[in-house]
Amino acid sequence: MNTVQRILVILSLVVLAGVVLTTMPADVLAADTGDIGQTASALFGKNLDIWFMLMLVAFLMMFIKKYEWGVALAVLLSAAGSYIAYLAIQQFVFGEEIITQAMMVRAVICSITLVIAIGVFLGTVKSWQYLMVGLLFAPVYAFVEWFMANPDIIGAAAADPGGSILVHMCAAYFGLGVAMAIRDKRAFDEPMHTTTHSVTFVWLASMLLWMLWPSFVTAGLTDSADVQLGTLTCFMAGIGSVISAYAVCMIVEKKVNPLTYTYALLAGPVAIGATMLIVDPWGALLVGLIAGAVSALCFIYLQPRLCKMIGVLDVMGVHNLHGMGGWVGVILSCVILGTFTNLFFAACVVGITLVAGAAIGLLARFTRGKMDIIMDDDPDFIKNEEPAA
Amino acid sequence: MNTVQRILVILSLVVLAGVVLTTMPADVLAADTGDIGQTASALFGKNLDIWFMLMLVAFLMMFIKKYEWGVALAVLLSAAGSYIAYLAIQQFVFGEEIITQAMMVRAVICSITLVIAIGVFLGTVKSWQYLMVGLLFAPVYAFVEWFMANPDIIGAAAADPGGSILVHMCAAYFGLGVAMAIRDKRAFDEPMHTTTHSVTFVWLASMLLWMLWPSFVTAGLTDSADVQLGTLTCFMAGIGSVISAYAVCMIVEKKVNPLTYTYALLAGPVAIGATMLIVDPWGALLVGLIAGAVSALCFIYLQPRLCKMIGVLDVMGVHNLHGMGGWVGVILSCVILGTFTNLFFAACVVGITLVAGAAIGLLARFTRGKMDIIMDDDPDFIKNEEPAA
Amino acid sequence: MNTVQRILVILSLVVLAGVVLTTMPADVLAADTGDIGQTASALFGKNLDIWFMLMLVAFLMMFIKKYEWGVALAVLLSAAGSYIAYLAIQQFVFGEEIITQAMMVRAVICSITLVIAIGVFLGTVKSWQYLMVGLLFAPVYAFVEWFMANPDIIGAAAADPGGSILVHMCAAYFGLGVAMAIRDKRAFDEPMHTTTHSVTFVWLASMLLWMLWPSFVTAGLTDSADVQLGTLTCFMAGIGSVISAYAVCMIVEKKVNPLTYTYALLAGPVAIGATMLIVDPWGALLVGLIAGAVSALCFIYLQPRLCKMIGVLDVMGVHNLHGMGGWVGVILSCVILGTFTNLFFAACVVGITLVAGAAIGLLARFTRGKMDIIMDDDPDFIKNEEPAA
Repeated sequence: MNTVQRILVILSLVVLAGVVLTTMPADVLAADTGDIGQTASALFGKNLDIWFMLMLVAFLMMFIKKYEWGVALAVLLSAAGSYIAYLAIQQFVFGEEIITQAMMVRAVICSITLVIAIGVFLGTVKSWQYLMVGLLFAPVYAFVEWFMANPDIIGAAAADPGGSILVHMCAAYFGLGVAMAIRDKRAFDEPMHTTTHSVTFVWLASMLLWMLWPSFVTAGLTDSADVQLGTLTCFMAGIGSVISAYAVCMIVEKKVNPLTYTYALLAGPVAIGATMLIVDPWGALLVGLIAGAVSALCFIYLQPRLCKMIGVLDVMGVHNLHGMGGWVGVILSCVILGTFTNLFFAACVVGITLVAGAAIGLLARFTRGKMDIIMDDDPDFIKNEEPAA
Repeated sequence: MNTVQRILVILSLVVLAGVVLTTMPADVLAADTGDIGQTASALFGKNLDIWFMLMLVAFLMMFIKKYEWGVALAVLLSAAGSYIAYLAIQQFVFGEEIITQAMMVRAVICSITLVIAIGVFLGTVKSWQYLMVGLLFAPVYAFVEWFMANPDIIGAAAADPGGSILVHMCAAYFGLGVAMAIRDKRAFDEPMHTTTHSVTFVWLASMLLWMLWPSFVTAGLTDSADVQLGTLTCFMAGIGSVISAYAVCMIVEKKVNPLTYTYALLAGPVAIGATMLIVDPWGALLVGLIAGAVSALCFIYLQPRLCKMIGVLDVMGVHNLHGMGGWVGVILSCVILGTFTNLFFAACVVGITLVAGAAIGLLARFTRGKMDIIMDDDPDFIKNEEPAA
Repeated sequence: MNTVQRILVILSLVVLAGVVLTTMPADVLAADTGDIGQTASALFGKNLDIWFMLMLVAFLMMFIKKYEWGVALAVLLSAAGSYIAYLAIQQFVFGEEIITQAMMVRAVICSITLVIAIGVFLGTVKSWQYLMVGLLFAPVYAFVEWFMANPDIIGAAAADPGGSILVHMCAAYFGLGVAMAIRDKRAFDEPMHTTTHSVTFVWLASMLLWMLWPSFVTAGLTDSADVQLGTLTCFMAGIGSVISAYAVCMIVEKKVNPLTYTYALLAGPVAIGATMLIVDPWGALLVGLIAGAVSALCFIYLQPRLCKMIGVLDVMGVHNLHGMGGWVGVILSCVILGTFTNLFFAACVVGITLVAGAAIGLLARFTRGKMDIIMDDDPDFIKNEEPAA
């Protein structure tokens, strides 16, 4: 596929987007469900589902055979650090006496944001440092959360019910900030050998994340009809990116790179975060089609260029899924709502998290000591492998 | 084990079934649960659970090491195509303005039916064709769904609350129809090498499908007491087939074939679909015992003969689990209810889906072009395998 | 690390525990959630979640490559036997006419207890014997359950809402009883070779068990505020053991043994069973810190000594997680409540289950016949492995 064809594919997607978005119905589908809103029972299930997703993010990143267990450990430690620090902030800084299911949901969303973020610099710090980064990330996240919900700054709060900005862009740019501060160029040369089954774990994680996503985007809603609409638009956006990421891989590279596809098929759910309540199901399908295509194209074209430019490797390609997926959500929500509010907040969040990430990354760099081998389980784990036959 | 012994085993199961079924209590156990029925919140959870099951069906079929990722891709694309086509039919043909949680549940059940069906002809069409088959399957399914719920045809609708006919038989015979039209005999000669871990993924999928099954069979119920009874009878039937499939494998083959057992242990939940609200827990246990034994026996004896007869390989043995499990449910429901209604609908569904499958299969055959290698990831995927030491 | 340092680590943990426990608030955090308690819908979800956990326990034990599938089969058969026997006892002995969601939850908790227990003697009996042990275990469990809930014995029932004694200690000591009766010393010499991916399945199981745990500990509660508090304290205890088990592994062994860590990180949730409603979140964090450290230390120091002493190998290290985790819960609950009630019940349960386990173990020993190979899939399964290149 030559450059002209590539540009044609991208242009046709943009034109398609423009046509459909401008004809999208202003009032969206939502029925009275006869339900009493989000009960504590319903939130209990979503609380666990989001923890489920947090654990699955580990398996999404466990494709490098020599570095599987260390990823799991890194996820557990960064989740642990950020969860307790977030709750401590709520109790002892904001003075919340009671920690409700809703508060627990906010805490695990803070943790999953960090777990996504560590994908950028995974394997380039020592295992105990994930705990440290977790403790330090929580105040940054709590500040961003407060900032985005604050209507006094530019007259309106961000319109981001499903976390396109708060979770995904925050994760991508915080991670990039840390990576740029650590600046370990050895990651570029690391052989990332996979096995059939190590990649099968990634398929498992991606497919289960995909189906759990409605729990994540609807967990903050209080109206039952919104939950219904958000569930539907999340699934439709997911279907959109399942299709378009496949199409882009096949058109551009003739074959599917499973480590591009299993990530890019989640771009629809990422982008729907900012748009889930302002599109109908067919609009959501389009959001997903666009996001999946953009994310797959970024894996193929943007990632090598961007990483070269900033001088560090985005190990797991976090920016292609969460960063770019977030931007798609932000831009589409601005188009549909006819306001630049989300764009303003997105730009601020990028700035805040890059700076905060760089600061925490510098601390990680100066405390990590000597690290002879990177992205490898060997320094951390005792093994009892089957001897070669 | 010789032929006489085999016949004795089968006969004793049939006699046991006859004795117990005729003594089964007519009125079944169901308590007022003090609940307000199936709320949208409860359906939200079941909606996700059925998507969970849909994804797990992929892993149930991922035992061939050289063809793991292609199975996942096939599942995603066929689900995507059928889901959007089913919702489009509901909105634009049947004029449903609002897509509720209940409607979303019906849509994902349509998709999981197709995902089961593709197991018959998996690996014998090109990857983009799963999307095409998905788009074409949805109208067939929507017609069968309407047909079975229609009380005007023979004076009564089918009694199939948990989908023995609508999902499982529909899947098995639609898949067989497609396979017979494609008629790729190379599947018989394909070496289906597994690894310990590829089969372990199948165990994972089977065991999680087993425990999620009550969400699937109770998702269409509106009465809380029915949900309770359906949960119980589904688990009891599942336990029945866990036990009887093991016994049959051990008695007939002396050892357990994991690819027979992990499938046949789900036959109880398949067969309970038509009988879940007309048996008590111990009757459900018996339904499961019979279904598990029948399914395991079909994997061992029927599959080689049937495939030779029809000239195509049922790649994943779909007919042994879903086809035969469905028949067990249909026959037992007719015996218990004393009516041939379900038998009539089952026969019609077999006919409709065989013909529709054959038609769509012919289209797939003429559009698939040249396909040098079948049941293999190589043509579709970029690999970065660990080099041999 | 020398012996002095080891003792210092342990002592400092004990002192920390003493200081914080005596300053723990007596009244704990619980808000009125405006919910109508545990509805049948909410229990439906927890019922399935606990079955999910039961299946995951299989994968927690599937790290020995030559013995993966047999573990799954053993789990299925022992769950099947115990579930139907428990329900039969409830219906035909205790005369329960209706089996509610709550009763189903109690039944699956009986089954998961046995599934934990078989980890002690896994691979040393024949596959059909797991079914037999299941049928025989249910009456033992039903008796223990009745015994612990009986306030007439010493004037108060056990205070164990989350099953530290009823599930975990019962499992550990029943399993030890069986193992001591079977007395197969060959287990000590068995090479337990793992692979990277077999251990990755253990990570998957451990991480998902961790996040599902609140469903397990709150399933027996009827008050919505208690459910909320139990969810929070369970997660906080889990975070505690994620951190302390890591710290102990790193301090004592310099590297993390994944088969120690993936188990010990669950010790907090085990120990919180008896204390979940009498601590605040920070107390729960401490409970988890202590339990994770104790469990990891037991894997490293106690297991080899204990197994030598009693002359049998605890194959999966059940006692280190469930036995010792249970003791931590019991002792801390006695300290906080200022009563020896739980200690009394724990001691009785240890005695009852050791004796019952030994009796059932003797039966298993005399019925198992000749067993040439132990802890191996070969005698039970047909394989179709990929030939070596």
